[in-house]
Amino acid sequence: MDRSTEEAQTKEMDIRSLSSSHHHSQSERYIHKVGVPPKQNLFKEFRETLKETFFADDPLRPFKDRSRSQKFILGIQTIFPIFEWGRKYNLKKLRGDLIAGLTIASLCIPQDIGYAKLANLDPQYGLYSSFVPPLIYAFMGSSRDIAIGPVAVVSLLLGTMLQNELDPINEKAQYQRLAFTATFFAGITQVTLGFFRLGFLIDFLSHAAIVGFMGGAAVTIALQQLKGFLGIKKFTKKSDIISVMHSVVASAHHGWNWQTIAIGASFLSFLLFAKFIGKKNKKFFWVPAIAPLISVILSTFFVYITRADKQGVQIVKNIKKGINPSSVNEIYFSGDYLLKGFRIGVVAGMIGLTEAIAIGRTFAAMKDYQLDGNKEMVALGAMNVVGSMTSCYVATGSFSRSAVNFMAGCETAVSNIVMSCVVFLTLEFITPLFKYTPNAILASIIINAVISLIDIGAATLLWKIDKFDFVACMGAFFGVVFSSVEIGLLIAVSISFAKILLQVTRPRTAILGKVPRTTVYRNIQQYPEATKVPGVLIVRVDSAIYFSNSNYVKERILRWLEDEEEEVKAATYQPRIQFLIVEMSPVTDIDTSGIHALEGLHRSLEKREVQLILANPGPVVMDKLHASSFTSLIGEDNIFLTVADAVSSCAPKLVEEQP
Amino acid sequence: MDRSTEEAQTKEMDIRSLSSSHHHSQSERYIHKVGVPPKQNLFKEFRETLKETFFADDPLRPFKDRSRSQKFILGIQTIFPIFEWGRKYNLKKLRGDLIAGLTIASLCIPQDIGYAKLANLDPQYGLYSSFVPPLIYAFMGSSRDIAIGPVAVVSLLLGTMLQNELDPINEKAQYQRLAFTATFFAGITQVTLGFFRLGFLIDFLSHAAIVGFMGGAAVTIALQQLKGFLGIKKFTKKSDIISVMHSVVASAHHGWNWQTIAIGASFLSFLLFAKFIGKKNKKFFWVPAIAPLISVILSTFFVYITRADKQGVQIVKNIKKGINPSSVNEIYFSGDYLLKGFRIGVVAGMIGLTEAIAIGRTFAAMKDYQLDGNKEMVALGAMNVVGSMTSCYVATGSFSRSAVNFMAGCETAVSNIVMSCVVFLTLEFITPLFKYTPNAILASIIINAVISLIDIGAATLLWKIDKFDFVACMGAFFGVVFSSVEIGLLIAVSISFAKILLQVTRPRTAILGKVPRTTVYRNIQQYPEATKVPGVLIVRVDSAIYFSNSNYVKERILRWLEDEEEEVKAATYQPRIQFLIVEMSPVTDIDTSGIHALEGLHRSLEKREVQLILANPGPVVMDKLHASSFTSLIGEDNIFLTVADAVSSCAPKLVEEQP
Repeated sequence: MDRSTEEAQTKEMDIRSLSSSHHHSQSERYIHKVGVPPKQNLFKEFRETLKETFFADDPLRPFKDRSRSQKFILGIQTIFPIFEWGRKYNLKKLRGDLIAGLTIASLCIPQDIGYAKLANLDPQYGLYSSFVPPLIYAFMGSSRDIAIGPVAVVSLLLGTMLQNELDPINEKAQYQRLAFTATFFAGITQVTLGFFRLGFLIDFLSHAAIVGFMGGAAVTIALQQLKGFLGIKKFTKKSDIISVMHSVVASAHHGWNWQTIAIGASFLSFLLFAKFIGKKNKKFFWVPAIAPLISVILSTFFVYITRADKQGVQIVKNIKKGINPSSVNEIYFSGDYLLKGFRIGVVAGMIGLTEAIAIGRTFAAMKDYQLDGNKEMVALGAMNVVGSMTSCYVATGSFSRSAVNFMAGCETAVSNIVMSCVVFLTLEFITPLFKYTPNAILASIIINAVISLIDIGAATLLWKIDKFDFVACMGAFFGVVFSSVEIGLLIAVSISFAKILLQVTRPRTAILGKVPRTTVYRNIQQYPEATKVPGVLIVRVDSAIYFSNSNYVKERILRWLEDEEEEVKAATYQPRIQFLIVEMSPVTDIDTSGIHALEGLHRSLEKREVQLILANPGPVVMDKLHASSFTSLIGEDNIFLTVADAVSSCAPKLVEEQP
Repeated sequence: MDRSTEEAQTKEMDIRSLSSSHHHSQSERYIHKVGVPPKQNLFKEFRETLKETFFADDPLRPFKDRSRSQKFILGIQTIFPIFEWGRKYNLKKLRGDLIAGLTIASLCIPQDIGYAKLANLDPQYGLYSSFVPPLIYAFMGSSRDIAIGPVAVVSLLLGTMLQNELDPINEKAQYQRLAFTATFFAGITQVTLGFFRLGFLIDFLSHAAIVGFMGGAAVTIALQQLKGFLGIKKFTKKSDIISVMHSVVASAHHGWNWQTIAIGASFLSFLLFAKFIGKKNKKFFWVPAIAPLISVILSTFFVYITRADKQGVQIVKNIKKGINPSSVNEIYFSGDYLLKGFRIGVVAGMIGLTEAIAIGRTFAAMKDYQLDGNKEMVALGAMNVVGSMTSCYVATGSFSRSAVNFMAGCETAVSNIVMSCVVFLTLEFITPLFKYTPNAILASIIINAVISLIDIGAATLLWKIDKFDFVACMGAFFGVVFSSVEIGLLIAVSISFAKILLQVTRPRTAILGKVPRTTVYRNIQQYPEATKVPGVLIVRVDSAIYFSNSNYVKERILRWLEDEEEEVKAATYQPRIQFLIVEMSPVTDIDTSGIHALEGLHRSLEKREVQLILANPGPVVMDKLHASSFTSLIGEDNIFLTVADAVSSCAPKLVEEQP
């Protein structure tokens, strides 16, 4: 009782003195000891690490203190959020969702047909993938703004990787089966990552790498469209810029079709103009959104009237009518292709996730609602697993359509249901009308869509902020453009990892000085007015000390000391360095190698008659220093709460030496 | 002029006030601005990063300001340090080296014969590897204490990996050729790592993983010796404990040879006793050092007299007389085996390096001299390349012999030359005498040698200091014991990497409170007496904010805020949280993803009417915050030098709310 009242009083005093802006500077010579945290239970510690790693978002929090039936309902609502938000659904929301759904449907239909071609699949598969997956997502997903369906980059990636295994024309049936197999495993990958709460793995693809990868993929996709845009019949299967440009130039004299180019160019100008209008005035966001559908309608009508297809203008020809057939029996569950499908599926699934989660987070932040990444992954995965059984290929969130969805005022995932219904009607009734749609229009629509993936502004910002990020971005970009999407992806991941490894291998260290008129010690490079303390060298280590950097840290500190000693020798009337203070605030953790390094440092310093002093080691570090009895090696009284305390304890001990 | 005098005065004042122990606490309300470091030249920045990464030890420093001829001499001395220390060599040093050299020679000869068997090679190859490589090392190496030759773990690793490719008995010639090929590439790997200054790569094998790996390898090696020790003829080729024990038990009834066991057991007891004496009294370090040779001589003589080999006691039989033949033409420079040899060589070379560098560093620290890791690698690599051409297999520094070398008072690498000469004489004249040496003795010597690799003390310390390190250690240990050295190594490397990735994905965060009677803010878990400031939440982020953790950091901070808000709601008369101070001292770097996360955090906080405040961002972070104009987003005046400054600026702005 007594103790707690005393504690309360102290706290109150503290608060009072603080709000009245009087500080405890009077009692400053009071030196507070460095705290040793209470020994934690091993099991508890382990459980907490596990929780922080895998359940950082505390997903079970709402389940606390509920009855069993409540838990059951909550569980259902967790898996199918539609049962949660559906109860508050009203007509006003429906109005928004209806408009948004119709808008994205008009955008997605022509895109789907084009994207299916990127994946070397028949056009109807694109539409299939915009019918089933959005329905599943609407029930299970928690993002309100994402628009689900096939996207350009994943289609290209899937097409490239599948093409390496099978020929999409001569081995069409197997190719399709492998595509469904890959889609199935993409879904399984996504569900697994979400279920085992490994969602953080997608964070290992850095923002910079994604910008570069997306830009490169956009350029590659646009280049691929030159086939349809120029009406070239013989075209390379490779996707790198050199092969493509070679193909284009080689066919310049006899392979181009001017009618095709005329149609393509005029509609591309129209689309770009529509985009310009949409950008100029946010109110006209629907202009670029419906422009593709208008282009398709106009151009189809035009070709039908003029019979331009007889002049060599290539047309879509045939889209199968009717909704998705079952493809359960098409998936390879055994044999050679199982493994290949699995490999391709994992890559496509991860890229799909990266895109969808990025979109989800962006819009969730804009409307300020929480998005559970792991739950999203389960939803996206489930939708792809079901999709793979209903003739869909990998679907995910589309950047362009989600933005349109958002601007058109969508309220919930119902806009996806609306879109899905429109696609259903299209499949059932309208597909035959697409017969005369010229390929050049689809090419124009895709070019127009992927252009916005080339984010020069973001790349410029990367250059301004972080040169290393810029290198990663360019590496991914040129990898994709000059080689292939896979190589680009590999480069992106490697550079991202290299950055992490560099960070942990070569942490920064800094010499600290006293900022004038304060008791604060800061990096003298950042604060050139900060002054060094004579006879004392203060080094800050800016990272956890682990096996990967412990030797470097030790040697770097010794090198700082040597540099300083040389400087001192050169100057006159300067005492030699007698104390080395290591500011440990940023050292959040240390392992056995790190402690070995500190011991080595201590020994080396002893030989040079320099005293090692530690300032402000954190709880974990303090704990481990105690456990290894390093504290008793250098002496408890050589560990201080702040650098200022440490310096003031050195000052009286400094030995004056005769020069 | 004026400015510099002023500066000098300020500094002087600072120093004076410091030494008289008067602090600037009087002027404490003076708030110093956060420094923005001067913009650095891009090229300079790049060059410095490069230098810090690859030339952290500044190897060209001695070459500065020297004439061309001096540079040439220095260059020669850098490659061949013997020309540097050789000039100061004297008789006194020779005496130490002579004694040490003879001692390690007596230890190495029996060990070499045994280790060659671990690598499935004829006994003479072990001796060859103790003749040429030490000579080369003596000229090029810079460690004064390391003893070069074949070692148990590398021999076992090489033997296991070679055996997977070729049968050492039926395909003996190719097996040997592959061994030389692997040795060649081990050397090339080592030279390459050293030359391109990639030495830090070996730091990625953590101390903990090495302890476990070595211990596991020791157990495996000891188990393998049961064949020779028990006189078993049919023995498994696998190295895992289950196969070996199965082999041992299966042969218990008819396969064991009691005479062999008797000889082996008695000499093993002798060796262990000798080791005990050596440990008991450091003066008798030579007892365990020469005990193996004595055992060999005694047992050989005994078998020769009693003709115990006719009773089934297996003997060495034949060691080829004469020094190393050339093996230049044996190395596979083309074909299938080139690649296999390369792969094996890289692994064996890395492990060899790890061992040698660890030894070199340990003894360099004891005698306080500098060891250039990268130069060492070039020396070790060169010695293995030459070795591969003179019938040697991979040699490196041996833990046990280096320790004996050190204790016997070696002064320079001349002790290696002495050892090499003794091995030369042995090869030329004495090898036939080993004919009757029983295999059981070699087994005993190896068991005795590898026992000291099982470092239970180190494992216990790991458990005490860092549980994760202990898991890594045990993973490597059980991987080696229950599967194979390769699997163990793979586990060790994977766990080491997992630790690094965990560190960068889930950095620690902490809530800070004011330590009573100071102006210092510290982790309230470490300092339970620290008090929170009402209306203000202070969070410290303990890591650089990179793409791999930026989302986590953002969400974790928001979760701290939610927890805190709940607590505040529960309490009465507490103002709601209106300021969130993020202590950035440990945040040494930030990338574009990190800045995005901060922007997201700022937006979310704005929605909740909480002001984001940053305390003490470092130079790099400050630079990037400026470049991305994040500073103007939250306002320059919301960035403070210290948490105390930030808190005192919040205090007057706190809005009192009616409960």
